[in-house]
Amino acid sequence: MGTEFLNLKEPEEVKNILNSLVIDNAAEKVELTKSFGRILAENIYSTMDLPPFDRVAMDGYAVRAENIFGASEDEPKALEMIDVVRAGDNPLKSVENDTCIEVGTGAPAPPLADAVVMVEFTERSGNEILIYQGVAPGENIVKKGSDLKKDILILKKATILTPDKIGVLSAMGIKEVLVYFKPKVGIISTGNEIVAPGREINPGEIYDVNSQTVAATILACGCLPTGVLIVKDDFQSLKNAINSLMDSDIIITSGGTSAGAGDVLRAVVEDMGEILVHGIAIKPGKPTLIGRIDNKTIIGLPGYPVAALLILETFVVPFLRRNLGLAFEEDGYDTIQIEISRRFHTSRGRTHNLLVKVKNGFAIPILKDSGAITALAEADGYIEIPKNTEIIEKGTLVDVKLFRQRFTLF
Amino acid sequence: MGTEFLNLKEPEEVKNILNSLVIDNAAEKVELTKSFGRILAENIYSTMDLPPFDRVAMDGYAVRAENIFGASEDEPKALEMIDVVRAGDNPLKSVENDTCIEVGTGAPAPPLADAVVMVEFTERSGNEILIYQGVAPGENIVKKGSDLKKDILILKKATILTPDKIGVLSAMGIKEVLVYFKPKVGIISTGNEIVAPGREINPGEIYDVNSQTVAATILACGCLPTGVLIVKDDFQSLKNAINSLMDSDIIITSGGTSAGAGDVLRAVVEDMGEILVHGIAIKPGKPTLIGRIDNKTIIGLPGYPVAALLILETFVVPFLRRNLGLAFEEDGYDTIQIEISRRFHTSRGRTHNLLVKVKNGFAIPILKDSGAITALAEADGYIEIPKNTEIIEKGTLVDVKLFRQRFTLF
Repeated sequence: MGTEFLNLKEPEEVKNILNSLVIDNAAEKVELTKSFGRILAENIYSTMDLPPFDRVAMDGYAVRAENIFGASEDEPKALEMIDVVRAGDNPLKSVENDTCIEVGTGAPAPPLADAVVMVEFTERSGNEILIYQGVAPGENIVKKGSDLKKDILILKKATILTPDKIGVLSAMGIKEVLVYFKPKVGIISTGNEIVAPGREINPGEIYDVNSQTVAATILACGCLPTGVLIVKDDFQSLKNAINSLMDSDIIITSGGTSAGAGDVLRAVVEDMGEILVHGIAIKPGKPTLIGRIDNKTIIGLPGYPVAALLILETFVVPFLRRNLGLAFEEDGYDTIQIEISRRFHTSRGRTHNLLVKVKNGFAIPILKDSGAITALAEADGYIEIPKNTEIIEKGTLVDVKLFRQRFTLF
Repeated sequence: MGTEFLNLKEPEEVKNILNSLVIDNAAEKVELTKSFGRILAENIYSTMDLPPFDRVAMDGYAVRAENIFGASEDEPKALEMIDVVRAGDNPLKSVENDTCIEVGTGAPAPPLADAVVMVEFTERSGNEILIYQGVAPGENIVKKGSDLKKDILILKKATILTPDKIGVLSAMGIKEVLVYFKPKVGIISTGNEIVAPGREINPGEIYDVNSQTVAATILACGCLPTGVLIVKDDFQSLKNAINSLMDSDIIITSGGTSAGAGDVLRAVVEDMGEILVHGIAIKPGKPTLIGRIDNKTIIGLPGYPVAALLILETFVVPFLRRNLGLAFEEDGYDTIQIEISRRFHTSRGRTHNLLVKVKNGFAIPILKDSGAITALAEADGYIEIPKNTEIIEKGTLVDVKLFRQRFTLF
């Protein structure tokens, strides 16, 4: 009896397999007020000119510029004020020669007015307005459509609806947008020793970690956890659990993937569907399994929390985000390039994802084993060490992919 | 009549005033499964040793190391297998001399066993196990408490509950945590010309932008929008709206802050409470107002969407996040340092926040006025130009504070 994996695959090959499994995500209409963080499933074209009318940019008087050419402190021009137009008003009177109309910022420019004199350069006496400074035609009026013309592509499909983008849609009066559905993800933790938090543990039992980190990560990347189950490490229990989550698009399990006696996931997936990956040439996370059951993707993470979270971050999150309808470039981590704090020996032959803490400008390797919970509490990110590297010398510049940044806002 | 502000304040002074208004946020217990993205309101100490028992790290046989010293391929040692212990089992038998117990990864080490021989180095024949390699005492057993001892500070107050941190709490069996309340924020857009999306607009009217960008930003930084109102730009309408939102912790308005005829917010806040800031020496965003009504903070953003969003980002978001219970260092933007694409003249005397697009490795200034909606759609972030700078030469390295990163995940 030995550690057997069907066929250890390189990380790149696994990523390609996952990419081939991305679902063609359906879309739904949501109200703009509920669209924050969703992904556009349509191209958005402007539905109107912006501004929708010639808009006054300053409080003052709408004039015909030619009427006040040459006005100055010494030789002001007098105009008759014939109306007042505030923001929101529909101007009815035109600015005839030698008249003016009082206007507020945001008001539509009255007909025949071609400029606005700022209130600071005027003096009022009854309906007579003295103008102390001339204006050029067009001054302090923003032309209709100068910001945006109708029927222009303004937001592309696959854009994340951030506050600024929502503002643009709102400016068009758009009340509903088509966004991709959130992929539904079912979560299973397997293991005879695993107990849900809040319950008593007996000797030999431990509290569940993975279903909580998986569920939170799924929320963090915009997907929808559909159910969280903790099941015993036997064929029928796991099969029943998977069956009960088949309304999900994706099922993520943890534990039960090691080769040998505990390898129930492999047996269940072989029984219910097909196995695509069993074993990745990576450390930690070798015993990862990927399969298909009824056109749904099932991902079996290792049981050790650090290994589970690293596989989740490096393989599963990019896959989930592509299922959201996001373009590939949105997968990226925030990366910082800093020096490693000490010499580090790595295990050759497998890509090694090394957890690090960032402190005082250095990447400090966390040398705990992948069962260590505290490693999770301490890590700021990880560095990816290629499989043919043996030693990283102290002071080498390394790219740290930061966890924290992914989850700073929510 | 001229543009009057009570007293134009420098940005740093305004930030200090806002800091003095941070509320002493109350806390609530939430279930761990609902804690993602919340802010810890308590220090968390470990409630148990981790692992909670001496844990087997490999599938194999639990032995007394001294019994198999010197075992080799040529001279294997034979041990009698007296029991099987799997993960989740409570071992009842001890490993007496010259016996062994079959164990699975994650199982508790049976009493008197001090090491585990990996299954790869053994051969089984009935209950006789041949051991082909010796082990050092302690090998393949993770000692109780070696990852974490009971009563150690593991997570500090003000920590954001990210998936990894939730995993740590789960490992302790913690089911509920104390987190800060989400500050409640009421939102008002003022302006006679402002119409909610989805309704018809008449000549002279425009669609509301600010309440949507403000509401989404409030969600994005972990606060709770309590209500969104669009009101006319008159004293009584605005006062009624503010009164109806007094169950909020903070009220954010936009529009109605310009000095002059349209300055209703100032009048309402003077009537209902006190004004702390009216005018900031910054561009865009000068007509910002900050006041207090019944111990609630009211922030009046400018009406122009770009100005409103920039004041929101630079002053209000850090303020909101401190109200969440976050430490100051969590305010930060992701910043990249790149070259500016062209020579840029700035207006002296005021700090200038310039929107930029990031393309081909350059920061490209967006030269639209702060009424331009399209500027919002194009901007990736902004650069802060100090008030005494007149010209930034093409190719100067500038720090771009990125908007996008704040909202990548949700």
